[in-house]
Amino acid sequence: MPTKLNGFNESSPLHDFLSPDSITIVGASADPTKRGYKAMIGLIKDGYRGSIYPINPKTDMILGIRTLPSIDALPDGVDLALICTPGPTVPALVRECGRKGVKGAVILASGFRETGRPEGIQLEKDLLEAAREGKVRVIGPNTSGMFNLHKKVNLLALANIKAGDIGFISQSGNMLLSLVLEAEHNGHVGFSTYAGPGNQTDIGFNDYLRYLGEDPCTRVATLYVEGFRDGRRFLNMARQVTETKPVVVYKSGATEQGQKAAASHTGALAGSYEMTVDLLRQVGVNVVQNSDEILPVAEGLGLLQQARGKRVAMVSDGGGQATIASDRLAEAGVELAQLSDTTRQRLAAILVPQASLANPIDVAGTSDSDPAVLAKCMEIVAEDDGVDTIFLVGMFGGYYLRFAEDLLGGEMRGAESMIELWRKCRKPLVIYSLYEAIRPPALRRLHEAGLPVYASLENAVRVIAALGERGIYLAASDEKRNVPAATPIQQMQAHFATARSEGRDLFEYEAKALLRAHGVDIQEELVAHSADELDPIAERFGDQPLVMKVVSKDILHKSDAGGVKLNLVGEQALHKAFDRIMASCRDYAPEADINGVLVTPMARRGLEVIIGVMRDPIFGPVLMFGLGGIFVEILKDVTFRAIPLSRYDARSMVEQIKANKVLRGVRGEAAVDKEALVDLLLKISSIVEAYPELAELDLNPVILYDDGYAVVDARVIVDRPGAERKGGH
Amino acid sequence: MPTKLNGFNESSPLHDFLSPDSITIVGASADPTKRGYKAMIGLIKDGYRGSIYPINPKTDMILGIRTLPSIDALPDGVDLALICTPGPTVPALVRECGRKGVKGAVILASGFRETGRPEGIQLEKDLLEAAREGKVRVIGPNTSGMFNLHKKVNLLALANIKAGDIGFISQSGNMLLSLVLEAEHNGHVGFSTYAGPGNQTDIGFNDYLRYLGEDPCTRVATLYVEGFRDGRRFLNMARQVTETKPVVVYKSGATEQGQKAAASHTGALAGSYEMTVDLLRQVGVNVVQNSDEILPVAEGLGLLQQARGKRVAMVSDGGGQATIASDRLAEAGVELAQLSDTTRQRLAAILVPQASLANPIDVAGTSDSDPAVLAKCMEIVAEDDGVDTIFLVGMFGGYYLRFAEDLLGGEMRGAESMIELWRKCRKPLVIYSLYEAIRPPALRRLHEAGLPVYASLENAVRVIAALGERGIYLAASDEKRNVPAATPIQQMQAHFATARSEGRDLFEYEAKALLRAHGVDIQEELVAHSADELDPIAERFGDQPLVMKVVSKDILHKSDAGGVKLNLVGEQALHKAFDRIMASCRDYAPEADINGVLVTPMARRGLEVIIGVMRDPIFGPVLMFGLGGIFVEILKDVTFRAIPLSRYDARSMVEQIKANKVLRGVRGEAAVDKEALVDLLLKISSIVEAYPELAELDLNPVILYDDGYAVVDARVIVDRPGAERKGGH
Repeated sequence: MPTKLNGFNESSPLHDFLSPDSITIVGASADPTKRGYKAMIGLIKDGYRGSIYPINPKTDMILGIRTLPSIDALPDGVDLALICTPGPTVPALVRECGRKGVKGAVILASGFRETGRPEGIQLEKDLLEAAREGKVRVIGPNTSGMFNLHKKVNLLALANIKAGDIGFISQSGNMLLSLVLEAEHNGHVGFSTYAGPGNQTDIGFNDYLRYLGEDPCTRVATLYVEGFRDGRRFLNMARQVTETKPVVVYKSGATEQGQKAAASHTGALAGSYEMTVDLLRQVGVNVVQNSDEILPVAEGLGLLQQARGKRVAMVSDGGGQATIASDRLAEAGVELAQLSDTTRQRLAAILVPQASLANPIDVAGTSDSDPAVLAKCMEIVAEDDGVDTIFLVGMFGGYYLRFAEDLLGGEMRGAESMIELWRKCRKPLVIYSLYEAIRPPALRRLHEAGLPVYASLENAVRVIAALGERGIYLAASDEKRNVPAATPIQQMQAHFATARSEGRDLFEYEAKALLRAHGVDIQEELVAHSADELDPIAERFGDQPLVMKVVSKDILHKSDAGGVKLNLVGEQALHKAFDRIMASCRDYAPEADINGVLVTPMARRGLEVIIGVMRDPIFGPVLMFGLGGIFVEILKDVTFRAIPLSRYDARSMVEQIKANKVLRGVRGEAAVDKEALVDLLLKISSIVEAYPELAELDLNPVILYDDGYAVVDARVIVDRPGAERKGGH
Repeated sequence: MPTKLNGFNESSPLHDFLSPDSITIVGASADPTKRGYKAMIGLIKDGYRGSIYPINPKTDMILGIRTLPSIDALPDGVDLALICTPGPTVPALVRECGRKGVKGAVILASGFRETGRPEGIQLEKDLLEAAREGKVRVIGPNTSGMFNLHKKVNLLALANIKAGDIGFISQSGNMLLSLVLEAEHNGHVGFSTYAGPGNQTDIGFNDYLRYLGEDPCTRVATLYVEGFRDGRRFLNMARQVTETKPVVVYKSGATEQGQKAAASHTGALAGSYEMTVDLLRQVGVNVVQNSDEILPVAEGLGLLQQARGKRVAMVSDGGGQATIASDRLAEAGVELAQLSDTTRQRLAAILVPQASLANPIDVAGTSDSDPAVLAKCMEIVAEDDGVDTIFLVGMFGGYYLRFAEDLLGGEMRGAESMIELWRKCRKPLVIYSLYEAIRPPALRRLHEAGLPVYASLENAVRVIAALGERGIYLAASDEKRNVPAATPIQQMQAHFATARSEGRDLFEYEAKALLRAHGVDIQEELVAHSADELDPIAERFGDQPLVMKVVSKDILHKSDAGGVKLNLVGEQALHKAFDRIMASCRDYAPEADINGVLVTPMARRGLEVIIGVMRDPIFGPVLMFGLGGIFVEILKDVTFRAIPLSRYDARSMVEQIKANKVLRGVRGEAAVDKEALVDLLLKISSIVEAYPELAELDLNPVILYDDGYAVVDARVIVDRPGAERKGGH
């Protein structure tokens, strides 16, 4: 029985057909080269215990099983149909399945939306209509198939896949094949359920993820994604699943070149890779950046204890590997723990005097005559409160080959101690050995016990980083509550309604009023509709330097129109500026409807940042934050989070940008007020949730000080159905 | 017989003892756990044909060979001594070796300089003295040993190393062990000569590299480096070797954490990692960034044809791997070639209609029934002039397993065609297969023929990038001539002499005069020693806004002292500024000796860059270039080249900085004059070579325009022996 995720009363609707008790093969065949034969022989050979109904009007019997002439002849309520026939036949067959209450269908054929051709797109529409009509859930089309090895169902025509606890959902069948071969070769990981979402016509990644989240045979959910169709629902699902199981995602399309390749493969909309990665990490997903990390990271997250953080103690037998590991750890944002005095004393008591007790620990030959000393070192550092993860680097397992055969006993004892430590200790042990590739006895013993050993230092480090990221994410639970949406204010809703009826976006002063009304710190701004209104404004602001900007729905680029004047002091200056703005705006746009000017104090100098909101077609409302100027324009150093944000999210955005040290103050500047910035991000999130009429928002720039911030310019784009929209960021 | 590198009349002085005809084992032993036994049995078992002289005063015979009581008893002129005794005994033994004309000694003991302790440092000094005295060249100390498998000499106590053509020099014995195990596991690469430089007391990386460069059994020189001792000589050697053989370097210490780990391991001075990598690439070295890339990249560079550039044609059987490869290629700076119309037509003629003829080419099922079609596609793209490298991605070799056994014939034919293509085509074929790990027959055939097949997509891409980098480097030969040093000018030498005698660095106007004298474009600058001299200066510059700066050897921070005034127009303004500068500088530094002021026109606004020169203790004079402001201060986006530069170097510096698109103009700015910038870099290089008195130089900022540049500030630090120097950049 599947477990249930919080918030769901029913178990996953996919359970019936991803764990089917009866299967029909539509297009079953007696030709051993056909998929309709391979699937059948697979089921029989693997010992599938459910019912098999081959459908083929031309043969009575296939592989000793009586065929049915048509779907109509099926009993009611078969769990799963594997449809092996060509694309154009599929909608009608699915309709027939619906009539007989078939719950799910795997559709192998391609030639649908992914072709980009009108007839393919139409065929996919027909298929979806047929599926909805008959309540048949659809895997694919353009899928490589599915398997559930614990149920002995393998519809993939791929034999000898090792069963295990890695669930895998992949838009590439070859990617599965690659992992299966890698697992076969490594010999110690296996798979639970696989499905290829193909074009995701009906079932999307979020549904599959829920299934894996609930599947008791799956310990780690692993996904190869070319593109999401409903990213928002995926994020919501992942947020739940990651609380109890690791979720590992490889997202293709990191570069434009890769996005093009993906588009021609599954017709997936790529979206911004950087944004997608940020949003996945926001909900606790472990994103891997290279395809050859998928399996090692999934294995490590599945088998090892959780880490509380990223402080690592490295136990090494010296040499280059410890140096390399130190570099890779630092690059991955993992730090070498500061070992306590007690720990160092305890290490000193068992190691030779030349040993280095700083981290990385170098046993300096102590292990050459007693390999088990490495396990003792691991036990000691595991008890240090400053250590989150224990990392063994070196020749363990190969001492008896490298030095003397009689060391084998010590190695086996060491392995037993490590296994015992792994079982009782609440910290992960990550083991890298030079000898892993040849699998000597001590390492075989570790594998048998379920403790992974890595053959690549680089992969071991990636596992450590992933464990640390997941640990920090899980530990932050109290700060992870989303900010509640603001309560919409009638007057502000009226601004949106007026703007919409006038076919325009919010005026800057309306945008600022909206922000101010929800507690964002906005400098006082006054509107003068005519020159008569300037004198009281001048009086009000005294001798602060002011800025004046034109207010007109028809003038978008205020500076280009000569509609902005800076550094104005005194009544005279205001009048002169007003006259000039009116004159030059009339020259610039004679037909423009000019409402007046906005006057506000000049912002002090400080650090410019930008905050933006867009409604992404895949992920919904997303907040972007970055430093202004070249950091955004040239370096693209920005960070994204799905709205609503939690305080943890807002803080992590501020920490994540590469130029974050600028926030701490450079070139003698004071550090900026990070708390004020975090609060601003959270307020923006709450406002965006409150007003569905808000399509986009741009605060550019916001100037940060050591005591707060100033919102210099605010732009709110109104959602006007039917209006032409420019793209997001 | 070794080949000789250009520029050397003799073959490498290391040849005699890295390819020894006679070996003495000092500290030979009958105890099988001792190194002095293991080395002997290794030589005997491997069938070493030279003479072996075990030295042990206590035994007559070891392993059937008569021992000698002491080094004194050796015949004259033995090629190599392996010294297995403890550190303190070593200097005396080396002295004895010298007396008997032993040419080289491998010193295994540790406890020398790498300990950081005074007695270790002294011991190493004694050792070096003894070696120099007796003309014994020293490998180590603190070395893992050496082997030369083609000579059947293996002094490493490590059996079963596969012979091949990869030469390896490594400061980590475990790194060698790791590569040996990797090679054993992969089964198709092997090693020629290995040496561990250890502390590099006598023989450094440059000497070893020369040996490998000349060694006919070595096809690729591969190095694991913790730190160079004489980086300048290494660069000079690498420049020669890379012309004929690939040189692959892994440099540890990419991070501070890694540098610390390395320092405690071989006592190596790390230096700046980024600078080291830049300088290595300058001389054609292929630098790899992960340790698990070393062997794949070395193998690929050794076995594959040279690429002319970085334009790749990818032939795939579709799916996720082509997408992933596209991402990785783009990240590695490799582009997918634009295929010619002819190529596309020829592909269309052999592929099914659904095939994608854009690059990556997707054969879309054509290969499922005829795997040999992949080889045909490779032949076609190989003939396209726009293609530098052919990349096969997919299931090749595993079709017969995946689909039907009778495809094996097609796969074998495909493999034969690929081998033929590889032999006749002057472009590299890089092959990645999902099935490589299980080595099916077609892939075995490729390996046997010497054509590598990669099991990791990521590694295959790194090989392609390395081939492209090497190809571009080799192709640029005509632009790679270094700029000649400038001819020193007497008057400028006098400036240095005066400055030195006065215990100061050059004044700014002297620094600028130096640059101007060698053709650098410097705005006119006039010195006023008193207010009387201001009027003619004002007249001379007319109504251009001017800047005035104090001239005083005692005032280093001119702005802090109030010694800089900007935007001065007219006589009056000059006089006022002069008075204020004098007053405030006297307040700031009452004792200061003030020579006057420097007056020059204000530079126009433009793009700020900085150019710096330092004399690095390891690599000698190095030029640094980067964009000014936050690019340097926060992002550390700078690039380095050893002086003298070639035009190729100067151009590649400009292209290499991450913010290089800023040079092409952003935010509406015009592109800067890159040719003027390149010329400026070359002039600086020629000046630095001409004046050994110049210790450091800083042009900060230089402002770039679309028609030239302005050197706003120039600082030249004079080499004053004995004076306290601040560090470099």
